Amino acid sequence: MKTIKVIKIGGNIIDNEEALAEFIKDFATISGPKVLVHGGGKIATKLAEQMNIPVKMHEGRRITDAATLDIITMVYAGKINKNIVAQLQAHHCNAIGFSGADGNTIVSEKRPIKTIDYGFVGDVKKVNTDALEVLLNNNITPVFCAISHDENGQLLNTNADTIASELAIGLSTVFNTELYYCFEKNGVLEDVENEDSVIENINIESYKTLKENNIIFEGMLPKLDNCFHAINKNVQKVCIGKSEMLFHTNNKHTTITK
Amino acid sequence: MKTIKVIKIGGNIIDNEEALAEFIKDFATISGPKVLVHGGGKIATKLAEQMNIPVKMHEGRRITDAATLDIITMVYAGKINKNIVAQLQAHHCNAIGFSGADGNTIVSEKRPIKTIDYGFVGDVKKVNTDALEVLLNNNITPVFCAISHDENGQLLNTNADTIASELAIGLSTVFNTELYYCFEKNGVLEDVENEDSVIENINIESYKTLKENNIIFEGMLPKLDNCFHAINKNVQKVCIGKSEMLFHTNNKHTTITK
Repeated sequence: MKTIKVIKIGGNIIDNEEALAEFIKDFATISGPKVLVHGGGKIATKLAEQMNIPVKMHEGRRITDAATLDIITMVYAGKINKNIVAQLQAHHCNAIGFSGADGNTIVSEKRPIKTIDYGFVGDVKKVNTDALEVLLNNNITPVFCAISHDENGQLLNTNADTIASELAIGLSTVFNTELYYCFEKNGVLEDVENEDSVIENINIESYKTLKENNIIFEGMLPKLDNCFHAINKNVQKVCIGKSEMLFHTNNKHTTITK
Repeated sequence: MKTIKVIKIGGNIIDNEEALAEFIKDFATISGPKVLVHGGGKIATKLAEQMNIPVKMHEGRRITDAATLDIITMVYAGKINKNIVAQLQAHHCNAIGFSGADGNTIVSEKRPIKTIDYGFVGDVKKVNTDALEVLLNNNITPVFCAISHDENGQLLNTNADTIASELAIGLSTVFNTELYYCFEKNGVLEDVENEDSVIENINIESYKTLKENNIIFEGMLPKLDNCFHAINKNVQKVCIGKSEMLFHTNNKHTTITK
């Protein structure tokens, strides 16, 4: 079985033109099959402001009405995705941009309305890797934005961390799959103020203890839940840290194990 | 050799939600390999207005500065392309959206500045069909927006009719290729006011005469030049008319021959 790397990058890279250019240059050098997943960063929020479309949030989550979905589709699948693809091509990495609608790769369902209506937000239901396998076997690199679809013609805004973990799980049936979450910190930190306090290994047991002791809290919880979801569903390796962890073997980061 | 249909649709379909839904439903039923190419319609102009970005034109052609290229990328490759792909999936047509950067399919060069600087506008230099062949042979339908790239990381706004003819020419080395330009009229008209006056066949000789007699003029000239370019470069069949010509054999339209 070949090894594939599924790599997710977030706002700290997307929102910084130089950091993105640097990352893309390095990403292009990774040998073997690979998939890139990118979040949206702050560009969608900026565009919404420019268009006088109010950004609605609920407990830190964006509510996606029709106008916001349009903005997200334009920014994530259009501007960000196509510019990443063009830059990868410049570094001789043959990339093709994807939303979950393309190749019917990521099928989700609109989140049911309970106390709050999140609008056009999708929870992943199914991943189809057929089209991806064909491309990966032909040395082509899929680049995913965080949009899925419901198979009835509706695009849906979907969490980029979830897209990455679900793709990794889907691909793990045909590849030995490694999942990398790149963000602005060196990994999960024992002390959030101290970049050197990286917890290098977390397993299901220690995760429980870290949560009980409030060392891991808030924003890190959904990220780690995605990691353990992937590890429990056949993904071989999950790492969290700065993107440097991919290119420098001695770069400290957090590895998630069962 | 298998036969492939390359079908280009323009503003009269893109700008009309119902017409687009109807077209997509019909397009999904076309058997055999096929490629869809879509223009941008008026949505990009509307977005530019909303964002207070002035639309600059020269002799009916849009001048593409950096802000305009961003808008075009967002609207063509994002909003329009992904919604078409999602709707095709709803009709069980397995589509993947493309710009010319994706799969390095359409390489162009920035138009040189002569008397006028058109900005980020690309003239097609090379078409690579490798990625497309892989997908087409796996029953996947590429859907192209009218954006190319220069292989140095720069996206470029490119005429959709040209994208369609260049793709058809590129694919004609491996497929028996038919190119269809769908627009708002029944074809090339003898009398522009009379929809029944379709000229059903035009060849290089009669094209010359029609131009000399001012029956074909202005906007139709670049469209027909694209047609003859394709016919002269190995494309088997080129047709111009309403999209109905694809689905109803008795629908009058113009066929271009050598």
